[in-house]
Amino acid sequence: MSVALPSITGVRLTPILIADPPLLNLSGVHQPYTPRLIVEVLTSAGVIGLGETYGDAVYLERAAALSRELIGMSIGAVNAVAGLGRGADALLNDAPAASGLRGVLTTDKVRSSVVSAFEVAVFDALGRHLGVPVHTLLGGAVRDRVEYSGYLFYKWAEHPVEGASSDDWDAALDPAGIVAQARKFLAYGGFRSFKLKGGVLPPEQEIAAIRALAAEFPGAPLRLDPNGGWSMRTALQVAEELAGTIEYLEDPTAGLDDLAELHRRTAIPLATNMIVTCFDEIRPAFDRDAVQIVLSDHHFWGGLLATRDLAAICRTYGRGLSIHSNTHLGISLAAMTQVAATVPDLDYACDTHYPWQSEDVLTERFRFTDGCVAVPDAPGLGVDLDRAAMARLHERWKALPEYRNRDDVAAMRRADPAYRAPAAPKF
Amino acid sequence: MSVALPSITGVRLTPILIADPPLLNLSGVHQPYTPRLIVEVLTSAGVIGLGETYGDAVYLERAAALSRELIGMSIGAVNAVAGLGRGADALLNDAPAASGLRGVLTTDKVRSSVVSAFEVAVFDALGRHLGVPVHTLLGGAVRDRVEYSGYLFYKWAEHPVEGASSDDWDAALDPAGIVAQARKFLAYGGFRSFKLKGGVLPPEQEIAAIRALAAEFPGAPLRLDPNGGWSMRTALQVAEELAGTIEYLEDPTAGLDDLAELHRRTAIPLATNMIVTCFDEIRPAFDRDAVQIVLSDHHFWGGLLATRDLAAICRTYGRGLSIHSNTHLGISLAAMTQVAATVPDLDYACDTHYPWQSEDVLTERFRFTDGCVAVPDAPGLGVDLDRAAMARLHERWKALPEYRNRDDVAAMRRADPAYRAPAAPKF
Repeated sequence: MSVALPSITGVRLTPILIADPPLLNLSGVHQPYTPRLIVEVLTSAGVIGLGETYGDAVYLERAAALSRELIGMSIGAVNAVAGLGRGADALLNDAPAASGLRGVLTTDKVRSSVVSAFEVAVFDALGRHLGVPVHTLLGGAVRDRVEYSGYLFYKWAEHPVEGASSDDWDAALDPAGIVAQARKFLAYGGFRSFKLKGGVLPPEQEIAAIRALAAEFPGAPLRLDPNGGWSMRTALQVAEELAGTIEYLEDPTAGLDDLAELHRRTAIPLATNMIVTCFDEIRPAFDRDAVQIVLSDHHFWGGLLATRDLAAICRTYGRGLSIHSNTHLGISLAAMTQVAATVPDLDYACDTHYPWQSEDVLTERFRFTDGCVAVPDAPGLGVDLDRAAMARLHERWKALPEYRNRDDVAAMRRADPAYRAPAAPKF
Repeated sequence: MSVALPSITGVRLTPILIADPPLLNLSGVHQPYTPRLIVEVLTSAGVIGLGETYGDAVYLERAAALSRELIGMSIGAVNAVAGLGRGADALLNDAPAASGLRGVLTTDKVRSSVVSAFEVAVFDALGRHLGVPVHTLLGGAVRDRVEYSGYLFYKWAEHPVEGASSDDWDAALDPAGIVAQARKFLAYGGFRSFKLKGGVLPPEQEIAAIRALAAEFPGAPLRLDPNGGWSMRTALQVAEELAGTIEYLEDPTAGLDDLAELHRRTAIPLATNMIVTCFDEIRPAFDRDAVQIVLSDHHFWGGLLATRDLAAICRTYGRGLSIHSNTHLGISLAAMTQVAATVPDLDYACDTHYPWQSEDVLTERFRFTDGCVAVPDAPGLGVDLDRAAMARLHERWKALPEYRNRDDVAAMRRADPAYRAPAAPKF
């Protein structure tokens, strides 16, 4: 008695533009709109699975090519979906800049970022078809809610562009502004730990912001992430000043050897989503003890099974694991929450940009309580698509070609035409 | 809309004794009967899941204790089942002897050997309940059959015990006998690669047997496994003589540093199921490059998810993976085949003792074609319990307390009362 699962009959790719606040980072500022790609996997049983990933042109092209290979595959063939097109590793760029905040971009990283959305969509379809949540297909949840940290950003009150998207989070350009933002996060979702996106202001100002947070929220775990923008000297100085105040530093410098030396000299735990971004990058980093906590991102690690693989490697090699975030919507938050629920030793609150996103393609937005998202227990990812909302955001994508590729440097240039991508290291 | 999966309402533990041929190894000889434990997980939906593991007293005791903790758990909670009782690591023995051919035995290894049977049984129940094969719950098969090697043993024609179990495999005590046995394996299941259990006869005789196999089956991958019974000097000599003839040597010596030196000096690939037998043992072995191929055993690694975790670690660290076997029946062969089917880079034929077992608790025995087992596609593991057969084997367990713990030294002493466990190294 053999079992026939539904097969994949089609793939719908819908690029969209979503409103994004003027959040500042190492490279520049977020655009008023940022691209995402919504994936729908259609099946012979009528069930549709949802996935989401980066929406820049390079991802759209690869998604269009790989989606053809999905047709006819069984929705039970998740490992095969995740392996589609594996192998290519040519370099696309060689410097972490603009949308390259995830490190060196290779064609294989683009591939894994695309197949991860397919993998999530196939898991969603399989879960819906079988009537079980995705976490059951990953061995089952070991917790019923997943904690996220409040992700603080230096930001402007508004975009320097006529008619751009707006938000109600106010400006935050100094310690008082960051503390006020954290209070707003607390009111929004009860967050119990905070991460500050650094690399924006001179380090002494960011140190002051962290100290202000520590004074305002005694005992709350705090993190600082300058996206590799500090020199070794700066990183050493920050590490010394914030030792004992901070839970970990994330990507303080851009090089493996620097991170290893920094940890050796200061003992401060170092996290990364820039130096270790794929399986090939694990061994060199662990061998040198350059990284103590890996921030996984199911989008670029290749999916939910790949995230579980990474968790097993981190556990075995005595490294911490947490979850990284790039601008994302609720489909991805559901996927992140589903997989995080199944990892036994998730020692740190995960990252999410979700509170910054005022738009979504879901019929119901996720809420945070005590900084946590309840693990969805409905079939599949546990979320439903709002087609009208998606159609509106796709219309925007069609109408605004200038935002179809995320470019934080170009966005900054709209405020300051003389602006250039910062030298490395920036500080 | 939340999903309620059936919960576990009971666990049946049935120790059995199965006929085992007089297979020789480093320690002595297999007993006429060897203990196994059959696990049945009962659920609120009526579905029953099957598992199998070691049946010695120490496992039975732990299984009885841990099985109580299963009651009330959801059959979707596989990760939680695999984590039951995790943490204890006290030493049970400190020398690889008798039934300790899997290396140093700790309470945590006994725990993982027990929870693996629970995990498999819960996967079987979940698969049956959802109507999908277990491999679908592991991300899906990437192949439709799994290759096993023909597992050759020096053996006597019969046990030195009145009224013991018998077999029709003849004696094999020299190269001609081993070649004849290999031919029989070929006729039995079309095996295309062979592994010889070594550490029995002086190394020059085992080298001669390997050479005879190479002459008889040109190009067939061959392996030799003396269970760590050789000195460094002997291992070096064998490695030099068999370089180019053998696919890999398995556990030629007992120590990590020796293996590392052996590989450094001879470049011969080394496999192990004795030095790396749990996640804590991976890092020291990989750091020293003492092991190039890890032979996983879902029984003692802690289950099918743990086997996939190990596969991810091996892939990331550039190590080969294959599957180890200890005397087992069809429930475990099904479990091994289900998980092996989902591992993308399974580069070596797996090991199995199954052809040596004339008895089983299944309604239908597995067959080998071209050395391969077809991946079951029926719900769950894809096997059904023959309760009458299990009851008979359980009656034997009750009737023959002298065989309830595997002891290859004691079995040898029945033929030679002066026999003692060999010194280490034996050769």
